[in-house]
Amino acid sequence: MRPTDRVRAAYDRLALDERPEAWITLRPVADVLADAAVVEARLAAGEELPLAGKLVAVKDNIDVAGLPTTAGCPAYAYQPAVSATAVQRLVDAGALILGKTNLDQFATGLVGTRSPYGAVRDVRDPSRVSGGSSSGSAVVVALGIADLGVGTDTAGSGRVPAAFQGIVGMKPTPGLVPTDGVVPACRSFDCVTVFARTLDEGRQALGIMSASAPSPAAPPHPVVAVPDRTELTGLSPDWLDAFDQVAKDLEASGARLRPIRLAPFLAAAKLLYNGGFVAERYAAVGAFIDAHPDAVDPTVGAIIRAARDIPAHVLVTDTERLDRLRAEAMAEWGDADALLLPTAPAHPTIAEVAADPIGVNTALGTYTNFCNLFGLSAVAVPAAFGVQIIARGSADAVAADVAARVLGDNPIDGTPTSGLPLLVVG
Amino acid sequence: MRPTDRVRAAYDRLALDERPEAWITLRPVADVLADAAVVEARLAAGEELPLAGKLVAVKDNIDVAGLPTTAGCPAYAYQPAVSATAVQRLVDAGALILGKTNLDQFATGLVGTRSPYGAVRDVRDPSRVSGGSSSGSAVVVALGIADLGVGTDTAGSGRVPAAFQGIVGMKPTPGLVPTDGVVPACRSFDCVTVFARTLDEGRQALGIMSASAPSPAAPPHPVVAVPDRTELTGLSPDWLDAFDQVAKDLEASGARLRPIRLAPFLAAAKLLYNGGFVAERYAAVGAFIDAHPDAVDPTVGAIIRAARDIPAHVLVTDTERLDRLRAEAMAEWGDADALLLPTAPAHPTIAEVAADPIGVNTALGTYTNFCNLFGLSAVAVPAAFGVQIIARGSADAVAADVAARVLGDNPIDGTPTSGLPLLVVG
Repeated sequence: MRPTDRVRAAYDRLALDERPEAWITLRPVADVLADAAVVEARLAAGEELPLAGKLVAVKDNIDVAGLPTTAGCPAYAYQPAVSATAVQRLVDAGALILGKTNLDQFATGLVGTRSPYGAVRDVRDPSRVSGGSSSGSAVVVALGIADLGVGTDTAGSGRVPAAFQGIVGMKPTPGLVPTDGVVPACRSFDCVTVFARTLDEGRQALGIMSASAPSPAAPPHPVVAVPDRTELTGLSPDWLDAFDQVAKDLEASGARLRPIRLAPFLAAAKLLYNGGFVAERYAAVGAFIDAHPDAVDPTVGAIIRAARDIPAHVLVTDTERLDRLRAEAMAEWGDADALLLPTAPAHPTIAEVAADPIGVNTALGTYTNFCNLFGLSAVAVPAAFGVQIIARGSADAVAADVAARVLGDNPIDGTPTSGLPLLVVG
Repeated sequence: MRPTDRVRAAYDRLALDERPEAWITLRPVADVLADAAVVEARLAAGEELPLAGKLVAVKDNIDVAGLPTTAGCPAYAYQPAVSATAVQRLVDAGALILGKTNLDQFATGLVGTRSPYGAVRDVRDPSRVSGGSSSGSAVVVALGIADLGVGTDTAGSGRVPAAFQGIVGMKPTPGLVPTDGVVPACRSFDCVTVFARTLDEGRQALGIMSASAPSPAAPPHPVVAVPDRTELTGLSPDWLDAFDQVAKDLEASGARLRPIRLAPFLAAAKLLYNGGFVAERYAAVGAFIDAHPDAVDPTVGAIIRAARDIPAHVLVTDTERLDRLRAEAMAEWGDADALLLPTAPAHPTIAEVAADPIGVNTALGTYTNFCNLFGLSAVAVPAAFGVQIIARGSADAVAADVAARVLGDNPIDGTPTSGLPLLVVG
């Protein structure tokens, strides 16, 4: 299909208006068609464009020149003069930007409901949350409208929505993809991520966004650390069974499983919101929130405002504690190539989140929060209820290779050859 | 001279009691003689001991097994079970520990007067400060009692006393020498340093303390950035003239000089005490100070107590500001191999410090404070009033090589061949 035809097909699908709340700024079709015509001209001129005509949705805390950046807060909006490097690299490779997507305001949340643009609903069950904070980007990829969704991930925002929406969410090693042009959430730990319906598309996009050579591949029989189900708090018996099955299938594929004690990982995870690091969120947008108290989502505002008075020495001791936990966790990690974990422990309804906005959200980050604190890479894949493959920092290809085994080496919109319960979407 | 003879000679000199305030714990001569006998036996057994019989004084914020660590505060004292790695490496190489030396309490100061064990007086002019915080280690090396003084340097504590005492002070790249067994001052920026009367002895000791291969040497015609004298605030006309002469002699030795704008360096220097980073000092010893208000030096207590209420978001924004200033400073640095600066702008009297304990101390760090914030290496040498050669991180050998040019390639207790006004001590 030619790029212009792809654009027309996407806007036909958009006309169905399935999840209008996924968008904050949708570009006029004529603008995107004009871009597509340019891509067609570049192709005709002989240019090599690996992403020619791929349709991209960009989370609205990432700059796209010509479109406002709101970070989910209309009063915060500004007009960026240039696109974020990560976005520009996709465009340079022939991708077409459809628009900017909804998010938990200031990327503070894992639910997708903390936005004045509306709670983003799950694609399959509209009573459930989409997951966040990169809610809109995940949903429009799952719907098949966009090929690629650009998101961010500090606590799990690029993985939890992938799990709930049944797509692939790739969270690179912190620093691998530039974060210029991104509204900081927790600047030390923010990553730009990508959603796709297939692992191959995600890997390709991530390679282009990072402009780096791929890291070394996983060995033929990768060692995968898998926690015992007694370690996996918060999962239903059904989900625990499904997780065990993913591990068994991974072993059947040739991986060598070994147990791992999760305590230091889960302890670090709690540091991201319960302690000094939240002060980074106040440093990023606190002055704005103080000046515009009524313009901010009440839950997000409460979290960030509470960070104003955290003493600096708490941040210092938390940083030291994190260093110790990282050392302890990596000793547990040992010789493993990867760690298999649930992406999220449960998939809450919008009503459950409304009843306990902080508690339900906090639980969602149990298995994702520690990754960026420890400088790790991760890929969330739609096996069972959604699992993630975590690899060491700068071992992004290892995470992706093991993720491919979990998926039976199949694109999720193709025909699975393994017995894995793949969730086919779109 | 045999190790046992060296010990006896040192204790004969110690009996003169020139600067008794330099010591907090001086070991009994019999203990040191017993260690020396062990070293002699190791030599007799054919061991290669590069520091055989070298006498070492250790700043009392660094652990030596068997001796109390006070950090300059008797109530804080504890008995370490093992020596700091940096110290143990010297001992393993045949060095002999004489004892523990006085310091500005909790390594918070550049004067050497902030200690209940007494203000450490300058070796040549007892009305002047020794410089700090590694006051005692510098003084006993300058007196010729110890061959090597182990110190620490966060803001300049391993360089300012070297300048005032006319010896060499080597401050390695942060992280090069392990800091285990050191009472933290500002943990992110603390370095273990060494004082010596000759550059060669300092280089040798630093190589052993770091247990690393030397970094690449300086090129034959190193590019040395030298600020214009109008940039050098706080220096007397005499000192400015002397600084210019050091630069001219360096150029005559074959170095290529180029100007540099100091603004981003000096702006970063101010961040170390005026902002969020002081919270690291509170995190390290704040709980102790709160619990023992009367046991603490009043100036040190006031500085660290004031850090209790600094908000974490200030530390975050200061860290971001530091990142920007580092980028700006390193753009100024450009292709330079090294930066020539005064070590301190003036050499105050003890009375001047007593009259304005904070102000005089702050001024002393003008040209040293930024180094660890920027991850740089530095060597303070006794040319003129005391200058420092600063090199990039992990370019410690470049700093030492250019320092050797400044010293006319001569050990300072040998015969200078250049016209530099070397200060011969001991």
